[in-house]
Amino acid sequence: MTATTPDTLTELAAELPAGALVTDPDVTAGYRQDWAADPNAGTPLAVVRATCTEDVQAVMRWASKHRVPVVPRGAGSGLSGGSSAVDGGLVLSTERMREITVDPVTRIAVTQPGLMNAEVKAAAAEHGLWYPPDPSSFEICSIGGNAATNAGGLCCVKYGVTTDYVLGLQVVLADGTAVRLGGPRLKDVAGLSLTKLFVGSEGTLGVITEITLRLIPAQPPASTMVASFGSVRGAADAVLAITRNLRPAMLEFMDHASINAVEDSVRMGLDRGARALLLAQSDAPGAVAAEEIAAMVAACEKHGATEVFATDDSEEGQAFTAARRSVFPAVQALGSLLLEDVGVPMQALPQMITGVEEIAQDCDVLICVVAHAGDGNTHPLIVFDPSDPDETDRAQRAFGLVMDLAIALGGTITGEHGVGRLKRDWLPYQLGEDVMELNRRIKTALDPQGILNPGAVLAE
Amino acid sequence: MTATTPDTLTELAAELPAGALVTDPDVTAGYRQDWAADPNAGTPLAVVRATCTEDVQAVMRWASKHRVPVVPRGAGSGLSGGSSAVDGGLVLSTERMREITVDPVTRIAVTQPGLMNAEVKAAAAEHGLWYPPDPSSFEICSIGGNAATNAGGLCCVKYGVTTDYVLGLQVVLADGTAVRLGGPRLKDVAGLSLTKLFVGSEGTLGVITEITLRLIPAQPPASTMVASFGSVRGAADAVLAITRNLRPAMLEFMDHASINAVEDSVRMGLDRGARALLLAQSDAPGAVAAEEIAAMVAACEKHGATEVFATDDSEEGQAFTAARRSVFPAVQALGSLLLEDVGVPMQALPQMITGVEEIAQDCDVLICVVAHAGDGNTHPLIVFDPSDPDETDRAQRAFGLVMDLAIALGGTITGEHGVGRLKRDWLPYQLGEDVMELNRRIKTALDPQGILNPGAVLAE
Repeated sequence: MTATTPDTLTELAAELPAGALVTDPDVTAGYRQDWAADPNAGTPLAVVRATCTEDVQAVMRWASKHRVPVVPRGAGSGLSGGSSAVDGGLVLSTERMREITVDPVTRIAVTQPGLMNAEVKAAAAEHGLWYPPDPSSFEICSIGGNAATNAGGLCCVKYGVTTDYVLGLQVVLADGTAVRLGGPRLKDVAGLSLTKLFVGSEGTLGVITEITLRLIPAQPPASTMVASFGSVRGAADAVLAITRNLRPAMLEFMDHASINAVEDSVRMGLDRGARALLLAQSDAPGAVAAEEIAAMVAACEKHGATEVFATDDSEEGQAFTAARRSVFPAVQALGSLLLEDVGVPMQALPQMITGVEEIAQDCDVLICVVAHAGDGNTHPLIVFDPSDPDETDRAQRAFGLVMDLAIALGGTITGEHGVGRLKRDWLPYQLGEDVMELNRRIKTALDPQGILNPGAVLAE
Repeated sequence: MTATTPDTLTELAAELPAGALVTDPDVTAGYRQDWAADPNAGTPLAVVRATCTEDVQAVMRWASKHRVPVVPRGAGSGLSGGSSAVDGGLVLSTERMREITVDPVTRIAVTQPGLMNAEVKAAAAEHGLWYPPDPSSFEICSIGGNAATNAGGLCCVKYGVTTDYVLGLQVVLADGTAVRLGGPRLKDVAGLSLTKLFVGSEGTLGVITEITLRLIPAQPPASTMVASFGSVRGAADAVLAITRNLRPAMLEFMDHASINAVEDSVRMGLDRGARALLLAQSDAPGAVAAEEIAAMVAACEKHGATEVFATDDSEEGQAFTAARRSVFPAVQALGSLLLEDVGVPMQALPQMITGVEEIAQDCDVLICVVAHAGDGNTHPLIVFDPSDPDETDRAQRAFGLVMDLAIALGGTITGEHGVGRLKRDWLPYQLGEDVMELNRRIKTALDPQGILNPGAVLAE
């Protein structure tokens, strides 16, 4: 679709600060893929490292004029190929847009997209405030990417996901127009809910250049519970028993393979023989945390936990949380990964987890399962050796079967990572043709030339 | 735009259950206006009282075919003319769609739109669960209308607004297609955030026929604080001091005129001499509620409260809450009302409230101010005698000036009631032309004939 020449790139460079436009193939190669390592990622014409909203506007005006595809990119930690480069297109990185201001009186942060999630949390913490959403990758994922994918995390079971904290956005549209949606108002229903529409749109409707976030007062240190189970079913039933009456601040699941991958990597003393492990926290104030932990322990014991450990030492609790967060790199040590992000209605959680075990057996591949169990969002991690074509095929087959299972159970192919390019072919099976058509109508209304992240979420 | 004849109405009647289509002018007259009493409301051709999604589909297919405008209507308790009838159009009421199921294991309710908010709360409470959003009108407003306007309420300061609880929708589109968006999954980012787009769209994009709601465990009974102030500024400063560090479960403001209107009506023993009153609650568990109330009392005393009362008796607290909820009917006893719903960034709350006092003086009208102070959302209620043309003019002028002030302070013309028809002319001043154009593009993409609630939110 592009008709770019060196002349047209020079035209773009003239609109940007020195060094913002990069064509050196050694550098641009690093922007071809995100963490999903999409094998079909293209080779970009150039990378723009924007320094401000005006740079992003210049890029989109130029791209519109010349019909050049633009792939917006945060920190490149995406797990579904939402930032895979497109042949002949631009990669538009927001990594250099790193300003943030925190207003402690109104408990609001206004941030540019390039800060890491952990940096936003740290800026809030300086004022005794907290930005809750916490993807496992919070130290290496950007807040812009979080907004673009409506990222989740471990505390979402109690505190909600990214969209619950986004009060406003500045967005650059396909034609280069910059608009402000929402703002620093805790309630605002003036006009259509465009802020919410752009959150989670994966760069297909516009480029987010500023985010207004609601913060909340810092929570008390958490108390923690760890329970081992002899069966996946017992752990899953304990999850339902806990969420029936309580709002834990975290409720995570690890299966046998994940436990052992973590133990190989960080040696936490987890029970290597357990079939499943639950990790839960309460951050209720005062004596209530102990009551909540006791109720969770009782639920686990009732559902057959073989070993239960509880602590109100927050550092000890953080060590377990860190172990849980390390599952992804620990499993990565075992081979290449295909990452699932399927979510199901809570009562289907046991079927989802046991169904993945069957798929692993049928396809003869290792699948490690870790889950944000408290909200039914599971991450089966399919391990394979890319130099083994047969195993690669079987892994690919398992990848599809897991999504098929989630859809059959009334679930979603993606709870928090986004559709990107790797799950795009499954989206119609989940949404159906009528809802796909609604998605396309809105995409076309806002990006009639189809230059914004083409091929992500929707087919080109 | 319509070309309907008795024949075409007969065609519609044949698609609906007996009695669903009403043309008796004595009955249809009751569907011309909502609580906003829009003087420009039209006269509908007919009213359809749908019994199921299929009825709504039949209406929209027929309306599409004949290009007849359709005004969706819940309980008719809207406060901005979002349900004003359109001349020659249909009013499509969902009042008869009243089924609900609650799943206590997954803490999810699936409800049709015709239930009152209070009925949804009651159905949840049967299982020890809670649906938080609580408009003051919760006993007479429908859950469908709540979703269509993204309604707020008193507990939103801690628990969020309607959209935060909507996991899924069934929606009938302009052409009669019924789609399911989202569903009973706590996290789901597959495709664009269409569920969130339809929440708050005021019937302009589709008709909501089913809502999947997230519920949470019931909260402990609340403790309550009431503080009187000799100045509006002192009360507003106390609000900022409280929200700086705490998350009260309610934080409401009443001005001198509201206090006296309530005392005239329900006699709670409020301080009639006070310039402002704050009503706050904590529903923190265990001993923490008393700590939070003590902190709120201290903040009020520090900012000049003349009298502070605190109680952990939840019935006593409910009496104060009921008094607060009665402001609207109490003020209505004083004359006709123009209802504002302006919201501002928290730090501008004192300027908003004192600015309204000045507008009342300048325009020589009574304006009673009640506010969800904890989230900056104020309801100036402009009282006037509609038989007095001069006072009516001054009230209309004040109505616009209050919205102008909110916009000038970086605020919104509507925090929770919706734009409807009465605030439509101010929307461009808040959003600006580029964002208006985005709204129109999405409206056109989903309702190309413009038959869904024409004239609401956007000009026809």
